[in-house]
Amino acid sequence: MADTLTTDETHRLIASDKVEGTAVYNPQGEKLGTVDNFMLEKRSGKAQYAVMEFGGFLGIGTDRYPIPWDMLTYDTDKGGYVVDLDKDQLEGAPRYSAGNTPEYNDSYGRTVYGYYGLSYPFV
Amino acid sequence: MADTLTTDETHRLIASDKVEGTAVYNPQGEKLGTVDNFMLEKRSGKAQYAVMEFGGFLGIGTDRYPIPWDMLTYDTDKGGYVVDLDKDQLEGAPRYSAGNTPEYNDSYGRTVYGYYGLSYPFV
Repeated sequence: MADTLTTDETHRLIASDKVEGTAVYNPQGEKLGTVDNFMLEKRSGKAQYAVMEFGGFLGIGTDRYPIPWDMLTYDTDKGGYVVDLDKDQLEGAPRYSAGNTPEYNDSYGRTVYGYYGLSYPFV
Repeated sequence: MADTLTTDETHRLIASDKVEGTAVYNPQGEKLGTVDNFMLEKRSGKAQYAVMEFGGFLGIGTDRYPIPWDMLTYDTDKGGYVVDLDKDQLEGAPRYSAGNTPEYNDSYGRTVYGYYGLSYPFV
């Protein structure tokens, strides 16, 4: 698929401003939404959360949902990320409206990781 | 300094679209330019290059310079990244004009890492 890739994306790398807007699918291949932006560690440069919008298919509006980055896998064929989430899971999930970003501190991190059944790997 | 941070930045995390535009300083505290965007590994979410613009102080125009991410350190006091580069080093450095992004393949990666005296850590 290399010939279909633009220069801001290679097989291994992608530009930060291209991740913003990348489609997200469920494992069944249905488009769930897009990555709005992502939160990364300043020092290491490691992405910790994808901040997602779940529009369209799920019909759950424009709220932003922080998803631990490791829950996402990149699918080269689809040209987007895949995450195993459904509407029921998202109904109670941590979210916020655009422009009302919470402070991403450890307390919030534990809430997010805990919601998805993951242990919070920091502190 | 927590009270001066906005919610898209905490002591540990920063939003991807806030990194884009973050100031970059030299170790002497002079502002060299800004981060234009950054290239990250799709799967791991790890930043590999900061793509920088060195304007103003150095007066070297608007070209984009890929810098291996690990050459940057984040300085909480300055609220920006610090990189030990001077005008002489940048004169021969790999660069491209806005809109002419090269393909970030392994060959290009070896060129960039090699220029800065680093071994290319992939492949």
